[in-house]
Amino acid sequence: MMYRSRPKGELDSDALDFLSSMQEDKAILGYDILGTEAHVLMLHKQKYLTAKELKAVLAALELAKSKPLLIRTEGFEDIHEALEGFVATEAGTEAGGKMHTARSRNDQVALDTRMKIRDDINLISSALLDLVEVLIRRAKQNKCTVMLFYTHLQQAQIGTLSHYFLAFAYSLLRDVERLSEAYRRVNRSPLGSCAILGTSMNIDREFTARTLGFDGLVVNSLDATSSRDVLLEYASDLTLCMNSISRVAEDLVLWSSTEFGYIELDDSYSSTSSAMPQKKNPDPLEMARAKAGSVIGDCVSLLAIVKSLPSGYDRDLQEFKQPLFRMSKTVLDTLRVLKGVVDTLQIRHERMEESCKNSYAIALDVAERLVSEQGIPFRAAHKIVGAVVNEAISKGHGSLRGLSEADIKTALLRARPKEEFDVARIHKVISEMTPEKSVRSKKSQGSPSPKEQAAMIDEVSEAQRKQRAALGSRISLLQEANANLEKIVAELTK
Amino acid sequence: MMYRSRPKGELDSDALDFLSSMQEDKAILGYDILGTEAHVLMLHKQKYLTAKELKAVLAALELAKSKPLLIRTEGFEDIHEALEGFVATEAGTEAGGKMHTARSRNDQVALDTRMKIRDDINLISSALLDLVEVLIRRAKQNKCTVMLFYTHLQQAQIGTLSHYFLAFAYSLLRDVERLSEAYRRVNRSPLGSCAILGTSMNIDREFTARTLGFDGLVVNSLDATSSRDVLLEYASDLTLCMNSISRVAEDLVLWSSTEFGYIELDDSYSSTSSAMPQKKNPDPLEMARAKAGSVIGDCVSLLAIVKSLPSGYDRDLQEFKQPLFRMSKTVLDTLRVLKGVVDTLQIRHERMEESCKNSYAIALDVAERLVSEQGIPFRAAHKIVGAVVNEAISKGHGSLRGLSEADIKTALLRARPKEEFDVARIHKVISEMTPEKSVRSKKSQGSPSPKEQAAMIDEVSEAQRKQRAALGSRISLLQEANANLEKIVAELTK
Amino acid sequence: MMYRSRPKGELDSDALDFLSSMQEDKAILGYDILGTEAHVLMLHKQKYLTAKELKAVLAALELAKSKPLLIRTEGFEDIHEALEGFVATEAGTEAGGKMHTARSRNDQVALDTRMKIRDDINLISSALLDLVEVLIRRAKQNKCTVMLFYTHLQQAQIGTLSHYFLAFAYSLLRDVERLSEAYRRVNRSPLGSCAILGTSMNIDREFTARTLGFDGLVVNSLDATSSRDVLLEYASDLTLCMNSISRVAEDLVLWSSTEFGYIELDDSYSSTSSAMPQKKNPDPLEMARAKAGSVIGDCVSLLAIVKSLPSGYDRDLQEFKQPLFRMSKTVLDTLRVLKGVVDTLQIRHERMEESCKNSYAIALDVAERLVSEQGIPFRAAHKIVGAVVNEAISKGHGSLRGLSEADIKTALLRARPKEEFDVARIHKVISEMTPEKSVRSKKSQGSPSPKEQAAMIDEVSEAQRKQRAALGSRISLLQEANANLEKIVAELTK
Amino acid sequence: MMYRSRPKGELDSDALDFLSSMQEDKAILGYDILGTEAHVLMLHKQKYLTAKELKAVLAALELAKSKPLLIRTEGFEDIHEALEGFVATEAGTEAGGKMHTARSRNDQVALDTRMKIRDDINLISSALLDLVEVLIRRAKQNKCTVMLFYTHLQQAQIGTLSHYFLAFAYSLLRDVERLSEAYRRVNRSPLGSCAILGTSMNIDREFTARTLGFDGLVVNSLDATSSRDVLLEYASDLTLCMNSISRVAEDLVLWSSTEFGYIELDDSYSSTSSAMPQKKNPDPLEMARAKAGSVIGDCVSLLAIVKSLPSGYDRDLQEFKQPLFRMSKTVLDTLRVLKGVVDTLQIRHERMEESCKNSYAIALDVAERLVSEQGIPFRAAHKIVGAVVNEAISKGHGSLRGLSEADIKTALLRARPKEEFDVARIHKVISEMTPEKSVRSKKSQGSPSPKEQAAMIDEVSEAQRKQRAALGSRISLLQEANANLEKIVAELTK
Repeated sequence: MMYRSRPKGELDSDALDFLSSMQEDKAILGYDILGTEAHVLMLHKQKYLTAKELKAVLAALELAKSKPLLIRTEGFEDIHEALEGFVATEAGTEAGGKMHTARSRNDQVALDTRMKIRDDINLISSALLDLVEVLIRRAKQNKCTVMLFYTHLQQAQIGTLSHYFLAFAYSLLRDVERLSEAYRRVNRSPLGSCAILGTSMNIDREFTARTLGFDGLVVNSLDATSSRDVLLEYASDLTLCMNSISRVAEDLVLWSSTEFGYIELDDSYSSTSSAMPQKKNPDPLEMARAKAGSVIGDCVSLLAIVKSLPSGYDRDLQEFKQPLFRMSKTVLDTLRVLKGVVDTLQIRHERMEESCKNSYAIALDVAERLVSEQGIPFRAAHKIVGAVVNEAISKGHGSLRGLSEADIKTALLRARPKEEFDVARIHKVISEMTPEKSVRSKKSQGSPSPKEQAAMIDEVSEAQRKQRAALGSRISLLQEANANLEKIVAELTK
Repeated sequence: MMYRSRPKGELDSDALDFLSSMQEDKAILGYDILGTEAHVLMLHKQKYLTAKELKAVLAALELAKSKPLLIRTEGFEDIHEALEGFVATEAGTEAGGKMHTARSRNDQVALDTRMKIRDDINLISSALLDLVEVLIRRAKQNKCTVMLFYTHLQQAQIGTLSHYFLAFAYSLLRDVERLSEAYRRVNRSPLGSCAILGTSMNIDREFTARTLGFDGLVVNSLDATSSRDVLLEYASDLTLCMNSISRVAEDLVLWSSTEFGYIELDDSYSSTSSAMPQKKNPDPLEMARAKAGSVIGDCVSLLAIVKSLPSGYDRDLQEFKQPLFRMSKTVLDTLRVLKGVVDTLQIRHERMEESCKNSYAIALDVAERLVSEQGIPFRAAHKIVGAVVNEAISKGHGSLRGLSEADIKTALLRARPKEEFDVARIHKVISEMTPEKSVRSKKSQGSPSPKEQAAMIDEVSEAQRKQRAALGSRISLLQEANANLEKIVAELTK
Repeated sequence: MMYRSRPKGELDSDALDFLSSMQEDKAILGYDILGTEAHVLMLHKQKYLTAKELKAVLAALELAKSKPLLIRTEGFEDIHEALEGFVATEAGTEAGGKMHTARSRNDQVALDTRMKIRDDINLISSALLDLVEVLIRRAKQNKCTVMLFYTHLQQAQIGTLSHYFLAFAYSLLRDVERLSEAYRRVNRSPLGSCAILGTSMNIDREFTARTLGFDGLVVNSLDATSSRDVLLEYASDLTLCMNSISRVAEDLVLWSSTEFGYIELDDSYSSTSSAMPQKKNPDPLEMARAKAGSVIGDCVSLLAIVKSLPSGYDRDLQEFKQPLFRMSKTVLDTLRVLKGVVDTLQIRHERMEESCKNSYAIALDVAERLVSEQGIPFRAAHKIVGAVVNEAISKGHGSLRGLSEADIKTALLRARPKEEFDVARIHKVISEMTPEKSVRSKKSQGSPSPKEQAAMIDEVSEAQRKQRAALGSRISLLQEANANLEKIVAELTK
Repeated sequence: MMYRSRPKGELDSDALDFLSSMQEDKAILGYDILGTEAHVLMLHKQKYLTAKELKAVLAALELAKSKPLLIRTEGFEDIHEALEGFVATEAGTEAGGKMHTARSRNDQVALDTRMKIRDDINLISSALLDLVEVLIRRAKQNKCTVMLFYTHLQQAQIGTLSHYFLAFAYSLLRDVERLSEAYRRVNRSPLGSCAILGTSMNIDREFTARTLGFDGLVVNSLDATSSRDVLLEYASDLTLCMNSISRVAEDLVLWSSTEFGYIELDDSYSSTSSAMPQKKNPDPLEMARAKAGSVIGDCVSLLAIVKSLPSGYDRDLQEFKQPLFRMSKTVLDTLRVLKGVVDTLQIRHERMEESCKNSYAIALDVAERLVSEQGIPFRAAHKIVGAVVNEAISKGHGSLRGLSEADIKTALLRARPKEEFDVARIHKVISEMTPEKSVRSKKSQGSPSPKEQAAMIDEVSEAQRKQRAALGSRISLLQEANANLEKIVAELTK
């Protein structure tokens, strides 16, 4: 507890435990060391540290980096304090005591968090693009796999499975987009803002920012140490992403049921029951769905912690780290497992096709034919087909195909006695309509017809490639900065 | 992965990691063992287990209890599986293989969670009552400590510090009440509901319930394995409790500021700044305030996980445990530290009194005097005193006391030219009003007058004692059940 | 803006609009009038109001009650101010100006809200019990309706539909219980706490509390005006209730799908598609499910508003009313519609039975038979039946029934070559097991056997009757208090 | 209920009420009409509507636009149905019945919502930039206004008021940025996706998109009708914005207190107490703070509604509109009032300066001087100044200035007996340090020195101008599209 210049005695041990962030801090130790290295390099450049002191401090930091277990943590509130203590021991109190010149835990924790989150953004973006790739691959395989689509969980129309995969891919690409935009706001250095208002020392904020691979500064020192909106934005982006995933997980859980029976998870992604031997449970999907709920709550924790907090650093912000870092892990784990699930899941083509046939899902197709071929107003066509569907249901058919011309005539007479219809034509339209025809007949842009599938696969692939390239550049810049810093440190400490 | 009767091969290792609940499960291992002991005792009583098998299984369970590190966990999805594996190894597959008769992970996890949460309720209730006790003690010391009370964070009226402590105590007692009501719903045994629909085996649910200290059953087997509302209720109760605490934390943070300056935290509960040597930060209070935010989020996680979940056990419910158990810990830690903070905080009596004097907080007292002594309608008295306050403000006085009769006359003439006032009387009322008088003059029930303080201290103390007694009984019942079970097991395994 | 004693000029009109709570206040006008009547009766009793003034004020209040549209609201921040203005106009500023003696908007709004919420609790409890009644009725009709139960949305075991309805009823009864416990905390009067610290006037808080039908006081005046935990508890209770409902809604939406096909909503509770004539959408269930989500958010709004709020009344608490009142309406509407849905929904018995037969849901029953009849350890029986199920699946049977003795033998040989089995017995157990037998064989308490159904119907009915009686008493007490107040006022104003 | 082709009879009236979205729909009627006009123009172009029919339908739509009260709403579930009914009456069932060709409520509601939200984004962005402008103006006025800055609500360092205003401006500019990025995703047309899978009719999605001012399509029809992530993103952006605002509101509430006394709200933005005449309450700030809480809850409602929803349109999505539209209004209202508050608030310069002087806030400045002038390691300087501060506190000085050389010597001897110090120098540094000097001495980029203030004012002004220009272009494009559509419709209907 080296910072205790004023309060006398020690912290109550329960209180120390209560205040400790050691657990979360382990995730940022590496960043703290890098940030400190950049900071002391700058202090040396600005003449606040002699070459000898610099060397001693850097050597101690490198030791901490390679053997983190050497750092004593008990009795320290956080990793920043523990690391400073370690360096003071290794490099001497004179040199170690200068390390904190023109710096505070406030800008330090802001720095570390931004460094961690920019890496998390890159990891998660990469996992998102991996999943998109798998979806593209599975879409390509299933451009002609007909299946029912639902609204209100009622059988609605016939589409293609690729259409489903691509809808998911589009939504994941928006997640990548959002994260790349958040990245631009995250990747700015708060270092040099010190406790809250900067410093009278002659520091060089641009130097440390550049050294650590940042695109620029969070200029205003109050803003840099106090605001958390950029991290909240990241948390929101993750929440949205998991929310979309939860819907896919729900669909796939449904499709895995015996009742739907459209897919079967690979055994490597299924669990069984401790009591019921016949069960094959889609556990990873259920977990993904649940984790979308956890993540909403984590995001709320963050919002509730920050809401109405007086400006400047408050200790409340320490509690911020735990849900935030947990979210990164949750999303990354989910994406990786989901990729495996999608990659390996078996499609039951016949079952999908069978369901299409035993359904009324062609009703709208029939109505549209009546409109385009016979010029019947859509609303009237809708009612006509409704009457025909009712007839089929009352006769216990599971689809329109079983209806004879006479059935159709009866239905229409009952429902719309005053109108005349070309019943033979209606019957023909119905009896000739197959799932494949239904899908192929779709003309509108973005519909499930194979032609539109091909176009969308191209579009999604192109977008995926572009995002992958942009991500690659971002990561390279960070790696270069890192390698550069390592080189300088290696030279200075050899 | 002993439950894998149907899926072939092993789970993907990422997926296993994703599904694993080992971390949370450690918190319930002890309960799982107790529950299993009660279950096998019952199985033996019902003739599903021989005496020899019973002894072997109990011995293995006792070993697991005393040396939990012996239990291999890698490769198992959860602690239930791992424990069954351990028992099978220790007691033989024949005996071990019977342990799971007429039981499923679904009723088992429901059981363990209820056993843990009933203990958590008791621990937290005890911590709440400890804090209430400290508040009573501090209230007794401060029945005559005058201080300003605020609305809209504007100085409003003069009260006593004990009044503040008692308001907090009343709210904590409601938290205890709510938890004791939740306890009645929590303390019912789901065991014997098996996977979802009970069993055709001739089990005795009442026996296991009684053995484990439950007050009765969650009768309906679907309800017992699927519903989580009772745990959500517990989570809500904790959220409400922390919400109330956050407001007290906010007040105390404000009062610790130089500007208010009403209290000073003991050094054992303060932190200092890494950069600014003069700082003495009320960190535990800020953390308590932040943790109230974390807890809102945890509660949302739970709600979001359960919302719209199909009935029956879903794997989503595993994800439920983590935020739930975390909440218990958060609240318990907060209560313990808060008790220390309140117990040791220094009151700056003079500062509090000084602030009362240098304020307009007696304005309402003056207005009420005008009403009771001179029969002026309240709304008119309100306006009169408003005019006088304005005069004092414009003259730069910080209170009403500095005003001369002439000042008051001027103010009233300007504000209410057509009316006549007994200015001398108004002046006298103002000049004689002191903080002590203001407080003593309060007549209404529940007001901050010393007389009412004494009455409320009695009421709160009495309520605290009653709750403590009720809690003691509850704990005793559990301890007796526990001791009884231990005795039986000890006899059978010796 | 009659309260503006100090600030000069008028509020900015945007600001007035921003601050206005007129919309929410309309819901509490009636309570505000009743509360004011009780207050002025007390003021008269305590000699702060002459008989003449009392009469004038009461007459004005009665006028406001019968013709609320007469109350001018523009230019007033809230209904309390508007009502005071109205009374001042009707009864004269002298009498009207006394109405607010020893009262503040702070205790007034706390009073009104508690009066509204206690009524809401009673309305909602009544609606809950109505729904429980319908569930009991439907359970009685369906004690022998076999159906599949699910875990992980996989077909698990065979139960009875009544079991499902009763599980729901049990959970609703817990909601009623929780609300009745909250009621005890809600039904306490804050009136007489004034702005924050009570008053020096000689008021009688017990008198107003009794007159308005309260069970007692919120004693501490700070607690009474500042704390909101009791209302948050009510909000949490509603959130839990809707959460349970969302799960039933989800189940019923699933069951309404063509794939499950277990139920059909009555036409009076179904919607159709604007585009697809064959659709029959379970809209009220989807809305109920969605409203459970809305309610979580409303509860979070309340928690986030109150979190870290300094003690004493803050204007933030005005914003509290809107989500709170909205929640009451949401829950009441949902319960009423849900009752209609459950009451009228058609059960497709054959479909349910058919599904039972074409499933592996008897697997656990078979395993349990092996345990009880042949003494095979459960875990071994589980694996045996798992092997048999796998054989059936690989042969494309949809159930165990199609397997011959030879099939079973093959399966067992392959899976457990070293063991010997009484294959004929296993075959017999399988071939004789029917859905009805599966259900009847269940022995454990709370299982879906008809016998247990009857017992649970009795228990639920009894609990429902008791809760109904308790609710009736509560309502009567309020009605009596109300009638009594009306009588007194009528006599005084005639 | 024109869509009821299949279910017989009418909806239960409670259910109709429950399902009705008429209230929220009024906000989108205008958009629905525009969208319908674009749609029928396209249908005509594609030969599905004759010129005569087109004219009749457009005339009816124009009538609905100018006289919305003519549209009967009772008995209809939503505005789409009601409008179709209206057009059928006005234009004849033949023409009216064609209006819905190749369109569904699902793409229609997605379209209307996007049209409304893009306008809301523009309105809110404009209000944000207005507030930034006010902040810049106030910053310019207060570049030299010294004031205390806080961490942990403890006096930390001395800065300038402009620094505070600029930190807020920076955060608002990030909000504008985020909204402009969301805009790009919002401003894409879902129209033509029909119910879920597009259509076999020969429609032109690009035409309607262009006509309505969209930048492109949401291509995939499932994505277009089912996903809501883009709207959730908007909701998250608003939540973040309000969260930042809540912190400023909290600060300003604190500063309005007598204890801080740094600012005074203009009378046009203050309220008074109904009971305490001296009060001047910062109500709009408290409301802004509370509304940040409401908005968190609304965002949670949206997330919870969408979470785990099966893909395709579900009725749950209707419940989505209410919180979403409410959020737009909340944020817009808050920004407008906050602009007024900031614009008119009075700064109490002397009080701010006085507080700086009577504080230890120069401690870090002194420590930094010891570092730069005397080469003392920072950690040692920190401890030295800590000792001096302790001495000053124990002597009851409110600042360091009162200390004599002897005092400093004593303090240092006691705290660090083994070291030697240039006490005279330390004394000189302390005695010469003034608030102005403290501020001017800050050298680091983004610190509160007047020089850095000027640089930041330039940066913020420039960013504000750029964002204003970009916003202007966006709005122009929409206005042009709108004007163009109006012109075409006017010509066709004259």
